[in-house]
Amino acid sequence: MNYNEKALELHEKYRGKIEVTSKFALETRDDLSTAYTPGVAEPCRKIAENIEDVYKYTAKGNLVAVVSDGSAVLGLGNIGAEAAIPVMEGKSILFKGFANVDAFPICLSTQDVDQIVETVRLMAPVFGGINLEDIASPRCVEIERKLKECLDIPVFHDDQHGTAIVVCAALINALKIVGKKIDTINIVINGAGSAGNAIARMLLDMGAKNILSCDRAGILSSDVPQNNWVQDEIAKLTNQQLIKGDLSDALKGADVFIGVSAKNVVSQTMVKSMADDAIVFAMANPDPEIMPDLALKAGARIVGTGRSDFPNQINNVLAFPGIFRGALDARASDINEAMKVAAVYAIANLIPEAELSEENIIPYALNKEIGKAVAKAVYDAAVKSGVSKL
Amino acid sequence: MNYNEKALELHEKYRGKIEVTSKFALETRDDLSTAYTPGVAEPCRKIAENIEDVYKYTAKGNLVAVVSDGSAVLGLGNIGAEAAIPVMEGKSILFKGFANVDAFPICLSTQDVDQIVETVRLMAPVFGGINLEDIASPRCVEIERKLKECLDIPVFHDDQHGTAIVVCAALINALKIVGKKIDTINIVINGAGSAGNAIARMLLDMGAKNILSCDRAGILSSDVPQNNWVQDEIAKLTNQQLIKGDLSDALKGADVFIGVSAKNVVSQTMVKSMADDAIVFAMANPDPEIMPDLALKAGARIVGTGRSDFPNQINNVLAFPGIFRGALDARASDINEAMKVAAVYAIANLIPEAELSEENIIPYALNKEIGKAVAKAVYDAAVKSGVSKL
Repeated sequence: MNYNEKALELHEKYRGKIEVTSKFALETRDDLSTAYTPGVAEPCRKIAENIEDVYKYTAKGNLVAVVSDGSAVLGLGNIGAEAAIPVMEGKSILFKGFANVDAFPICLSTQDVDQIVETVRLMAPVFGGINLEDIASPRCVEIERKLKECLDIPVFHDDQHGTAIVVCAALINALKIVGKKIDTINIVINGAGSAGNAIARMLLDMGAKNILSCDRAGILSSDVPQNNWVQDEIAKLTNQQLIKGDLSDALKGADVFIGVSAKNVVSQTMVKSMADDAIVFAMANPDPEIMPDLALKAGARIVGTGRSDFPNQINNVLAFPGIFRGALDARASDINEAMKVAAVYAIANLIPEAELSEENIIPYALNKEIGKAVAKAVYDAAVKSGVSKL
Repeated sequence: MNYNEKALELHEKYRGKIEVTSKFALETRDDLSTAYTPGVAEPCRKIAENIEDVYKYTAKGNLVAVVSDGSAVLGLGNIGAEAAIPVMEGKSILFKGFANVDAFPICLSTQDVDQIVETVRLMAPVFGGINLEDIASPRCVEIERKLKECLDIPVFHDDQHGTAIVVCAALINALKIVGKKIDTINIVINGAGSAGNAIARMLLDMGAKNILSCDRAGILSSDVPQNNWVQDEIAKLTNQQLIKGDLSDALKGADVFIGVSAKNVVSQTMVKSMADDAIVFAMANPDPEIMPDLALKAGARIVGTGRSDFPNQINNVLAFPGIFRGALDARASDINEAMKVAAVYAIANLIPEAELSEENIIPYALNKEIGKAVAKAVYDAAVKSGVSKL
C-alpha cells in the first residue's frame, strides 16, 4: 500500500487526527463544581479584574491557531478551506508531538485579506499565538503584517519564515563543509512565492550579498512590469544591477541553488554550469527540482531535499514547534528577527562540526532534542530582544 | 478549602482545562508520511473533489465550537472575551466527558451582532456544530437566527434551548406527581432574558396555555414601552389579556414558578399565595430565588434548583452533550423543535414512573446514561424530521 492509500485509510479510520480533551478527569460532583459551576466563576472574576491572568487560569498560553484560507495548500493550489483541513490538523499534531504546543486548525471560508485579518483578530482572545499556513503569496505577506500590527501575540507565517529558517540552518552547515562564506557566494533562489521571498530576506539579514531570485518568467528585476508587490520588493533588495535572464542564466557560476518551485525545472546541464562545490537544495514537494542522484552526478557536492527518503531533509518541522514553544514560554509579543536567527543557529548547531558531512548537514526530523534546543534559543532571544512579557 | 479556592488552584495548576491531542502516535518516518506530507495530500484531494468527504477524513463531524462574546457570563455579567474562557473551556470538557464530542472554546473580542455572525460563519468549515453560550439577550436571539440562516450545520444557543429543555423535562415529571395537566396550569416565569424567553416558547410548544413572564419591571405586557424586541415577542405570545402587576401579583394562584433570575426575589408569602401542590423551580445560580427549605415550609410540594447540593438539580449538562451527540451522529443541518422536544422526553423518561417522587423528578447529572439516551432520541428525531444529511 502506498502513502496515499495509507493516508486515506488512517484519516477515515480516525475521522481526522485531532481531539479536544480534558487535562483531568470529570467524575464526581466535586469535579463538576470545581471545573464548572459554581467554582469556575472564580477564575473568571480574576481575569475580569486583571486580563493578564488569562495566561494563569486558561489554556491560552499554550494554544496556537493554525490558520489557513486554503488558497495555496501543499502543491495542490487553491483547494479551499475544507480541503485544507487535513494539512492543518496534521500541523496541529506535529505541534503537540514535537513541542507539546496545543494547536487548533482554523480554516476560513474567505480569501479576502481584510476579512481574514478581522476574523483572526476577533477570535484571538483564546490563542497565545497565530501560525498562518498555506495562504497564497503575496496576500500572505499582507495578512501577516496587518495581524502583527493589531495583535500582541506572536504571528508567524510558517511557509515564509519556517522554510527560511531551515534553509538557512542547512546552508550554514553546508558552507562550513565547502569552506565558503555567505557574504561572497552567489545564491540563486527559484520560486518567488512566500517561501522564496522569505528565504531571500533572511539570507540578506544573515549577510548574503549576491542573490538572484527567479520565478517562471526568469530572474526577478524591478524594471519588469509583471511582478507583484512582494516580488518587486525582493527584486529591489537583490538584483540592483537589473540583471535579466532565465534560471539557466542565473545558475551559471552560482555556488548555491535553493528551489521552492516545481519538479524537474533544473537540468544536469544547469548544475554543471554552477561553481565548484555547488550546493543544491531542491525542495519542491513531493518531487524535487532535480533528483539528488542526477544533481550529484552533474557535480553538486551537497544536495538537500524536502523528502524523508533522501539525506538532508530540509523540513519546516525542524523549526515551527520549537519556535512557538520558545515564544509561548517567553510570552513573547512577537516572533522577531532575533528569535528567527536564534532558531537558525540552534538547528544548525545540533550537528557538531566533527559530524558534519555532505550527507549530514541538518538534524533528523524526528530527533526530539530539536524542539527543546530551538525553544531554548528562541526563548533566550525573546528575552534579550525585549519582546518577552514575563 | 471552598470551591472558589479549589477552582483557582485547579485552573492554575493545569493552566486551563483543555488540550488538543492527536488520535494516534507520531513516532516514525512512516507516521509522518501518512499523517503529514506526502500522504496528507490525498485526503485533501478527495475533499477538493467532493466537499462532503470533509466528514470522512477530518475531525469536523465531531467538532463543536463553543462561542461566546463574554457579554453575559454566568451571573457575572459582561466580563469580556478573556474572562469568559474558563466557562467555555469547562463546557468543552463537559461535551467531551458526557458525550465524546470534541468542543473548542471560541471567545470573540466583539459584541457586535453582525461581526459575531460573520466571524462564526467564516470559521465554520472546521466545525460540525456551533454552540452559542453566555451572550446577552436579545442579541443572542438575533445571532442565533442569523447563523441558522447562513450555516448548514446545527446552531444551538444553550442558555436558551438547553435550559428550556431541562426545565420542561423536570416539569413533565413534576406534573405527573401532582396530577396536573400542562394545558390547564398557570405558569409564572421570572427572568425575561435568553433562558426565560426560550422556556416560555418551549412551554407554549408543549401545550401550555397560561403563562405570565416577568422581569424586574413586573409582568411583561406588549403595551409597555420598555420591552426589548424579544420580550415584546414573548409578551404577545403569553399575556394576551395585557395583565399588569409585579411578581407577587403574578404568583397568586399560580401552579408553577420557574425562576431564571436572581437570588431571594421570591418570598415565603409569595409561595403561600400559589395554588395547592405548587411547583417551584428556583434556578438562579449559585443562590436561588428562594431557598428550598423556605419554599417547602411555605407550602410548595416540589422544589428544584440549579445546585448540586439539593435534590432535583435542573442543569443544562443533562441536555447539551447528548443533543449535539445526536445531531452530529445524524449529520443534522439544524437542531429543530422536534429534536429539542425529543430531548425533553428522553430526559424525563429516564426516571421510571414508579421511581418518581417529590425529590426525584430529574436524573442525576453525572449519570452517564443520559447522554446516550438523549443522543438516540435526538438522532431519531433528526432523521424523522428530515434534517439528517446521511
